[in-house]
This record gives sequence, structure tokens and C-alpha cells, in this order.
Amino acid sequence: MFNKITIIGCGLIGSSLLRAIKKKKISNQISVFDNSIKVRKKIKKIKLKCKIEKKISESVKNSDLIILCSPISSYNEIIDNIKNKLKNNSIIIDIASVKNKSIEIIEKNIDTKIISWIPCHPIAGSEVSGPEYGSATLFEKKWCIITPTKNVKKNHLKKIFKFWKKIGSKVKVMNKIEHDRIFSITSHLPHLIAYNLVKTAIDLEKKNNSSIIQFSGGGLRDFTRTASSSEIMWRDVSIFNKNNILKSFNEFIKNLKKMSKLIKNENSNELKKIFLNTKKIRKKIVLAKQDTSKPDFGR
Amino acid sequence: MFNKITIIGCGLIGSSLLRAIKKKKISNQISVFDNSIKVRKKIKKIKLKCKIEKKISESVKNSDLIILCSPISSYNEIIDNIKNKLKNNSIIIDIASVKNKSIEIIEKNIDTKIISWIPCHPIAGSEVSGPEYGSATLFEKKWCIITPTKNVKKNHLKKIFKFWKKIGSKVKVMNKIEHDRIFSITSHLPHLIAYNLVKTAIDLEKKNNSSIIQFSGGGLRDFTRTASSSEIMWRDVSIFNKNNILKSFNEFIKNLKKMSKLIKNENSNELKKIFLNTKKIRKKIVLAKQDTSKPDFGR
Repeated sequence: MFNKITIIGCGLIGSSLLRAIKKKKISNQISVFDNSIKVRKKIKKIKLKCKIEKKISESVKNSDLIILCSPISSYNEIIDNIKNKLKNNSIIIDIASVKNKSIEIIEKNIDTKIISWIPCHPIAGSEVSGPEYGSATLFEKKWCIITPTKNVKKNHLKKIFKFWKKIGSKVKVMNKIEHDRIFSITSHLPHLIAYNLVKTAIDLEKKNNSSIIQFSGGGLRDFTRTASSSEIMWRDVSIFNKNNILKSFNEFIKNLKKMSKLIKNENSNELKKIFLNTKKIRKKIVLAKQDTSKPDFGR
Repeated sequence: MFNKITIIGCGLIGSSLLRAIKKKKISNQISVFDNSIKVRKKIKKIKLKCKIEKKISESVKNSDLIILCSPISSYNEIIDNIKNKLKNNSIIIDIASVKNKSIEIIEKNIDTKIISWIPCHPIAGSEVSGPEYGSATLFEKKWCIITPTKNVKKNHLKKIFKFWKKIGSKVKVMNKIEHDRIFSITSHLPHLIAYNLVKTAIDLEKKNNSSIIQFSGGGLRDFTRTASSSEIMWRDVSIFNKNNILKSFNEFIKNLKKMSKLIKNENSNELKKIFLNTKKIRKKIVLAKQDTSKPDFGR
């Protein structure tokens, strides 16, 4: 499909793409750049076969596809370092969870008549970070959202569709504004709420954290998993999708205050109604095959 | 260990106890009462061997151990119906997640010189309800908290310790006030936050729920599991532990407003610090064997 692919940033997602590209024989050459010496050493240690470059400008030379797998906050510096080294008619894609602002950064820095810029967002990941956790099958049966810019070349868009499908993803095109709104609800809010919940538990039990650790099996435990995802990624998501996130925070606080009042007044009918209503969404999620119906009895 | 055991309420926990008692041969006779015809029919259908009683007063006759496995809101009626039918020197235990108020209800209705009342709380369960989901191994390696009342008979307390250990639990004694405070943090707050999160997602996407269902894999999905637990149980927990829960709600809202402000001001250092701090608790939970370190890559 491509003669040379460059992966910039080789953490969980970057190294999973590297593995998937090799497994599906999508490219003859793969070049990897990561600005962390630690990460570069790890890639060598776990014997991921690829050309590891120390200079980002070297890594993109003659590349047909460049995949940005680093935090959005690094996009400005990256694009500055590569924009004059790109091959004509090459394609840049990324994997960020926020689209509107990341699209702006790239768009204003490259000539989209010469280079194609196609923003992507694979809905795949884990709470762990680093190339040692990567997997060639991470994207299988997972959604990949593409939010194409206005003047994108149709043949390049087709090629990127094929790329994600080849590594097992289901592809969907979405408007960037719609994307950022939907994922602020289904992903960003839940993660930030999990972080806030774990912080609150720590604060409430400042003197004696041992008891909340020992008895975390009653519910808290599952939130600590979500709240141990990459701090860099979630810092960037919070800031780059701030308006949508703040809106969802407000709605959340409004609802929590309402629930607080119902509990205070011991309004058992209304409480039961809320708890029953949320169950319905669960059934739909299982029906849509977004989760298994198998009950979880803890670990 | 016991000649006759009565289980009142045969949902997930009741039927799991029934299965565990049979498996470990803890009692010669097991009698079950559930006021729902549907549940009684299910118990017959799935062939759980036990004496199913239609009258609660019959079910407790000559029983040496009575286990309350029904919602706390039913305790008043249950104790009223059984208090004059209890065998001298018998033991009542329960399995509720809130102790202070449930202890009061039972205590003021029975003569604790004749009947022993020993409040228990096994930290085990699932998001599903009903006898068909029960399992004999549900309590294995899980905590069971016992919050003994002042004048409890030592030999009876010992017997209940043995009972939980026999079905695989790790037993811990706790003060009832301390219990309600700790579990408001590790269990009640997380569940109510999950319900509130799912409600907020529904509210934000009123017109078009299909998109939040389709893309729930990014985080929301795991919360919908927690938010599909028994609505009766959580209504009761909210009301019976209301002071602790309202306190934790206040702390949660205070923290969320702080986070909101940090996002608004794009204070990336402070945000990163919060996200990094919560990670530490996760490591301690895994070290305390309250969860596996195996990463979750979604389903």
C-alpha cells in the first residue's frame, strides 16, 4: 500500500500501529521517531523491527504516510520540524481524541495542495502507556473516526479508509465539530469524572488511605483503572476540547445537585426512576455489541 | 454447622448464599422465602434444591440461622412478620451495604438476649439481579465486614465468622459508623456517580442517543455497567446512608468545580498533577491484590 511509513511517537498506539502495519504487510519500510530516549531504548529491547530515527526530520524523508501518535500539545513543534522535509503528494494522519483544534494546527502549517492531511481517531486504547503494551490487534473491530478537511483528495481519503480497514477497524466519517461534541460525552467526560472521583476518595480519606485501597472492590476499583490512563493525553484533551468539556461538566454538576436534593428529601420514587432509566441505555449498548452481556462479578 | 438455615430474599446474593451453603454442606435444611412469585418460579425452574415457602412466618420456624438478603426498605415489614416466630438462641444476619440504620431497625424489634443479631456485609456482587445469576463461588476471596452490636454473644459471633470463612470470605470486624463512612467512599459514591454520568450523557444527547451508544467504547460503556445495578438496592443505600453520601457529593462537586476552573484557565501543570496523583492509588490497589494489573483493552 505504501512504500515508506513514518510513525512519530511510539507509545501504546504508535507501537500498536507499527505492529499492525508489519503484520498486514502494509509498507515496505517503517521508520519510527520518538523524542524520548527511554522509549527508543524500549523499542530496541522488545525487538520491534523498524528503523529508529533520532532526528525527526530524517524520519519523514521520502515517507508516503506520516502518522502522528504523539500528544496534541506536541503538534506545533512536530509540524514545524517536518513541514519542509515532506515528500510531495504524501499523506499525514493523526490519532488524537480531539479534532477541531488539532486540525487547525496542522492545516495552517502545511500546503494542503501538496500534502494531504487526514485527521483520524481510532476508538481503541488502554489505561497503560508505552511501546511494550502495544498489540497488532488493538484496532480490530474498533471504530476509527475520520474527520476529513474540505479539500482533501478523494484518492488519498480512499487510501486511508483502506489502511484502517486492513488493520481491522470499522471506519466512519464525521464532521469535526460533531466529533468533538460526541466524544466529550462518551469519552472525555467519563475519564475526567473518574479522575475526579479517585481524587475525591483520596481527599475524603487523607489520613488513612489504606482502607479505601483495601475495600476498593465495591466500586471504586474500576474507576481507578480509568483514572490511571496517560496524564499527558488527558491534560491535552481537557485543554483542546475545553468548551465541550466545560459544558458537560455543568450538566453533570446540575444533575448531581438534583440527585443530592432527592437524597436529602428521601424522594425514593424519583431516585428509583433515575436508576431505572440509566439501565435502558446499558441494554442498548449490549445490543449494539459495544459491550458483552456477561456479568462482571469482580476480580 | 446449622440444622436449619432460612434465606429471606433470593436474588443474586440470596441464591449465591444458598448455593454456597449447599456446596459446603453447612446446613441439613435450607428454607427460602421470597415475596415475589416471579422469583419463586425462577428458583423452581433453575432447580435450586431448597424448601420454598410462600409464608415468611413458616420459613423461619425452627431455624437456627436467618439470613436477610432483601432490600433494607423491607426490613421493617420482615422483622414485624417474623419476630414472634423465631427460635430461642437463633441468629439473624443480613448482607446490607449500610449498617447504622439497618441495625437500628432490627435491634429495636427483637430481644437480643434471646436472639443474636449480627450485621454482615459481603463485598461481593454484580450489576445483574435475580437468582439465575447466583454462584456458589461469589464470596470466595472477597471481604465480609461484620459490625457486631454491643452485647453480641461471643460464641454466636464465632459461629458467623466460621460461616463466612467456610464459603471462602476473608472476614473483618468494623465499627458500624466507620463502615458506613468507608463504604460511602469506596462503593456508594462511585455507583451514584456512575448513575449520574449515564443520566448526564442521555440528557446531553436527548435527540440522538444512537451516537452515544455506538461510540460508548471510549469510556462511557464501563460506567453503564455499574449504572445498571439494582435500582431498589441503590435507592435504599442512598436513603439509608444519606449523611455520608451527601458529604461525599459535596466534596466531589467542590473538586469538579476546581477542575473546571483549571480547564477554563488551561492550567496544564495543575491538571497533569491531579491526573498523575490518582495513578498512585491504582498501583496500591493492584499491590493490595484488589485488582489485576492486566491492562484492559476493551471488549
